[in-house]
Amino acid sequence: MNIVEIINKKRLKKHLTKEEIKFVIDGYINNTITDYQMSSLLMAICINGMNKEETANLTDAMYRSGDVIDLSRLNGRKIDKHSTGGVGDKTTLIVLPLVASCGVIAPKMSGRGLGFTGGTIDKLEAIPGFHTNINIDSFINEVNTIGLALASQTGNLVPADKKIYALRDVTGTVESIPLIASSIMSKKLASGADTIVIDLKVGNGALMKDIESARKLGHAMVDIGKAHNRKVVCVLTDMNQPLGNAIGNALEVKEAIDCLNNNGPDDITNLAIVLSSVMVSYGLNISFEKANDMVLENLKNKKAYHKFIELVKYQGGTLEEMKVSDTVISVKSKETGFVTAIETDTLGEIVRKLGGGRYQKEDKIDHSVGLVLSKKIGDYVMEDEEIVKIYVGSKDVAIDEVLNCFKIEMLNKNEHNLIKEMIR
Amino acid sequence: MNIVEIINKKRLKKHLTKEEIKFVIDGYINNTITDYQMSSLLMAICINGMNKEETANLTDAMYRSGDVIDLSRLNGRKIDKHSTGGVGDKTTLIVLPLVASCGVIAPKMSGRGLGFTGGTIDKLEAIPGFHTNINIDSFINEVNTIGLALASQTGNLVPADKKIYALRDVTGTVESIPLIASSIMSKKLASGADTIVIDLKVGNGALMKDIESARKLGHAMVDIGKAHNRKVVCVLTDMNQPLGNAIGNALEVKEAIDCLNNNGPDDITNLAIVLSSVMVSYGLNISFEKANDMVLENLKNKKAYHKFIELVKYQGGTLEEMKVSDTVISVKSKETGFVTAIETDTLGEIVRKLGGGRYQKEDKIDHSVGLVLSKKIGDYVMEDEEIVKIYVGSKDVAIDEVLNCFKIEMLNKNEHNLIKEMIR
Repeated sequence: MNIVEIINKKRLKKHLTKEEIKFVIDGYINNTITDYQMSSLLMAICINGMNKEETANLTDAMYRSGDVIDLSRLNGRKIDKHSTGGVGDKTTLIVLPLVASCGVIAPKMSGRGLGFTGGTIDKLEAIPGFHTNINIDSFINEVNTIGLALASQTGNLVPADKKIYALRDVTGTVESIPLIASSIMSKKLASGADTIVIDLKVGNGALMKDIESARKLGHAMVDIGKAHNRKVVCVLTDMNQPLGNAIGNALEVKEAIDCLNNNGPDDITNLAIVLSSVMVSYGLNISFEKANDMVLENLKNKKAYHKFIELVKYQGGTLEEMKVSDTVISVKSKETGFVTAIETDTLGEIVRKLGGGRYQKEDKIDHSVGLVLSKKIGDYVMEDEEIVKIYVGSKDVAIDEVLNCFKIEMLNKNEHNLIKEMIR
Repeated sequence: MNIVEIINKKRLKKHLTKEEIKFVIDGYINNTITDYQMSSLLMAICINGMNKEETANLTDAMYRSGDVIDLSRLNGRKIDKHSTGGVGDKTTLIVLPLVASCGVIAPKMSGRGLGFTGGTIDKLEAIPGFHTNINIDSFINEVNTIGLALASQTGNLVPADKKIYALRDVTGTVESIPLIASSIMSKKLASGADTIVIDLKVGNGALMKDIESARKLGHAMVDIGKAHNRKVVCVLTDMNQPLGNAIGNALEVKEAIDCLNNNGPDDITNLAIVLSSVMVSYGLNISFEKANDMVLENLKNKKAYHKFIELVKYQGGTLEEMKVSDTVISVKSKETGFVTAIETDTLGEIVRKLGGGRYQKEDKIDHSVGLVLSKKIGDYVMEDEEIVKIYVGSKDVAIDEVLNCFKIEMLNKNEHNLIKEMIR
């Protein structure tokens, strides 16, 4: 096989065979295929696409490029929850203890943030002492003991994805349904779960900007799941504004705890309830309605909250010592009207600039900084009324930059739904 | 400006501005844009195309990337003849002395072969003593003295094309009308001619396999010429079989001399007459018919032949010492019937394998080897009758491999036209 012939095939919109796709992934990992050949092929895939079979074969070749986690020592259905990434998305911190409190096995491996959306592992590390580097034996022990565990990815999981993603980032080949779907699904397959519930974000704070692309991505991932004998459920949810009010690591942990105490914002609480109900219904093989009842009950009776406290203790964290910044700037609106739009990605970027995120893999994070929104889409705000609080650390940010993220209009035209639809 | 944004624009089929294109070419030459970013953009251009304006701007940025030859010291219209490359194409060796004998200024810079088609410079170097490395002052002196000169490209002409072409070759991005057109035309613009006659080859021995693609390429080059105030004429000619009978450097020089002595094969002689007439009509600003009369006259009275001899002497060559191989294998047909097709590119590859071409830039060429076809498309061949002669040097070639290039059928269905059409 010859890489130039394979590239030419895809340039001419022909289908690649399983063997050709394996040849490409293996060759790229072994450095017999160069970056410039890979980027040329990736662009051809971006423009000319891949069919179901090619996408499944690509995912297959990718997930086998490194370690594959074996969760067979855990009894029962292994359910993974994944988010495609959004601003202020602390849903995992609520969902995981919630489903575990219902008796669903919740072994969750998560990543760190790089970009304007944070990573669950970074959020957890806002809790002093909380350790996330757990080897696979301790991880399984923990799940068997308390019903859940939350660890950073160990081992050499899907090196092909790491290498390809880094290249896509600098070659204008990020936006491609088969490439995004295989990137996400290869990591999910390598993580060992048999049911995967994906929170697929849509909007100006997400990779998928419109519902049509999100639908395509959802179907692509469900199809990959079918080809690999896994159940995949994608829940399409709105990301045209931050989820909840808090953005920033410690602030988000605080908000998640508020939710677990029935005291958090409605949008994130409701999303957590829906995702948890889906997971519980698959995990216990019961109806969605029955699962939903259990979830609501365990939220009300604080079993979910106590499960979270159990998790934090087991992994060495001391919640009382978690700090948010003392320096808080109250940003006031200059106009009167309805908030009709929020530049979600820019708000994410601002938190990164404050020190709450990374520009380089090695950057240290300031867990205490962030934003808390006082107003969201649909809310009425008066001139000089607070619209957002900035929790500042050692790095500064322009107040106008924050203010400009909010569009304020006299007429509120937006019909705003958080949960849009479901694909399975 | 940002290269990833530019790549994304082209991925989404948007038009690039003149400034963006210049940013790309300058950045690639200065190594601020990487190979993998360039190949990604090239693939996007291959698939999504470029409009007239983008193609003209790309050519502009490329030709200004290096030295530009100034031919203003030569009086009169400077006419360049270019071939897009074919097997057995020795037309330049006939056309150049022919138009010079008619009084047209013929300053020709040419390249070496790399691939299955030979280069004019390699063919001339089959003549012992013939030197092709001439500096620009000697080159202009020669044209002013004898009316023509044939030299290898001097200086750093269009480095952007060299770098981009090398990348396209290994990234499946060769087949693209705007990329091919800008590659050819940037070199022509940098060479200083004001009228460019292009012999655009079509067929299985050429880059353009079908007449439709060739037409598109022709129009693209004519358009680039218009945008840069140059007259471009493309003559689309057949390359479904070698041009003339001889393939290989010394063999081709011999055949060219036969043509200049009215003793060569009809196809190549007729092509040389048409191309020369076009060049003479533009060069002397006379009608094609009048030019055609002059060309035929100077072929008949041997003025063109003597002009060639003058050129060889001026550049130090000794024709008498030119050698073709003594080891000649007469390949006989195993079937009886009409030759209905010839694998032209494979014949070119066979001559390369014999030592008549290069695999690496540094390879030495054996000028004495090659093939001479006894039968061409439409010819009737009997079993055991000679179909081709192989002139062998130090490297061997399988006789069956040569024989397999000829398709022999009992019925002759082919309607075979050498000169197909003209675009101007």
